[in-house]
Amino acid sequence: MGLLELARRRRSVRSFSSDPVEVHGILYAIEVALEAPSGANQQPWEFIIVSDPEIKGRIREACERAERDFYERVRGELAEWLSEKGLSWRKPFLTEAPHLIAVFAMMGRPYSVQSTWIAIGYLLLALEEVGLASLTYTPPNPREIGEILGAPSEAVLQTIIPVGKERGRKPKERRYSLEEKVHIDTWGGSLTQREPLPWTPS
Amino acid sequence: MGLLELARRRRSVRSFSSDPVEVHGILYAIEVALEAPSGANQQPWEFIIVSDPEIKGRIREACERAERDFYERVRGELAEWLSEKGLSWRKPFLTEAPHLIAVFAMMGRPYSVQSTWIAIGYLLLALEEVGLASLTYTPPNPREIGEILGAPSEAVLQTIIPVGKERGRKPKERRYSLEEKVHIDTWGGSLTQREPLPWTPS
Repeated sequence: MGLLELARRRRSVRSFSSDPVEVHGILYAIEVALEAPSGANQQPWEFIIVSDPEIKGRIREACERAERDFYERVRGELAEWLSEKGLSWRKPFLTEAPHLIAVFAMMGRPYSVQSTWIAIGYLLLALEEVGLASLTYTPPNPREIGEILGAPSEAVLQTIIPVGKERGRKPKERRYSLEEKVHIDTWGGSLTQREPLPWTPS
Repeated sequence: MGLLELARRRRSVRSFSSDPVEVHGILYAIEVALEAPSGANQQPWEFIIVSDPEIKGRIREACERAERDFYERVRGELAEWLSEKGLSWRKPFLTEAPHLIAVFAMMGRPYSVQSTWIAIGYLLLALEEVGLASLTYTPPNPREIGEILGAPSEAVLQTIIPVGKERGRKPKERRYSLEEKVHIDTWGGSLTQREPLPWTPS
């Protein structure tokens, strides 16, 4: 399968079945992520695979407490979007998914946050390749979650990725087209040389 | 080809041949990037494909001026690493590569920088898939480059990715192994359940 097909197939999943999932697929995906480029090749990332139900429970409890504060304060467009999508402070996927991948960036290295998110991009595609559903969940209280996981202070939690099998099936959110997001030479330069797409690599 | 093989094959390339490269492969890779997930599905990214030699020349000139200031100030481990790698303020790839992809994050959207770097991860893998060499170059003066390209102030340049065919062939930098970067359940929890890797998905 080409990358375009893989990337199109992947959707963010918030509802996981309780089916157990072997850790092998996750290790494969992290192995892909470890190949990502990084500032001065510092590879400023660390991964914790959390499968222990008790630890997942503590993470969920801490996240939901912080999310409740956030949802009480949020206003405007974002509040509308959240309500339309049926999102709330409840994060059941943090205990329902059989595994969580906590991804950390090591501070003080060049472009550590940016590099770590490149690796997260690799990771998400590789999880899809091995048939695992995922979500990039960003808790409002990354420091607190890092403490639960025993991370040192220079390791800052970037995301928690629940991983497992999807329960049910939701459609993918609409994406903008090339014409809407690509400029030629300068901002606003229109994409006119375009030939029929998608162009599949040989 | 599986993603692990693709990710392993990709190396950051700083030396490009002057061979022209069709823009189709780049459009394909951006189409893959457009499928990335983002905070509240805001897709807070924009791409400018720069092929005009005059504009590439202005970008190179502005970057090299800022790089010279940076290299005069840099000290310590990073300075040693740069010197070991033979890196300097000179950035010939900015004019030698047939195309540059300038990637912008739109400020004021939730997690716009993080989301954009996920998309950059997708983009780098897709460029490799279509046989195009690339580098994630982060100029010290992103605002100035944005102005050259006519970007509005809410669009902040994240990286310039030169794209083309590699001149010569350099080896890939060493990557850490799974055992060095993966923890189980909490920080320091060792990866003992591991079975032989790489595990290739069916």
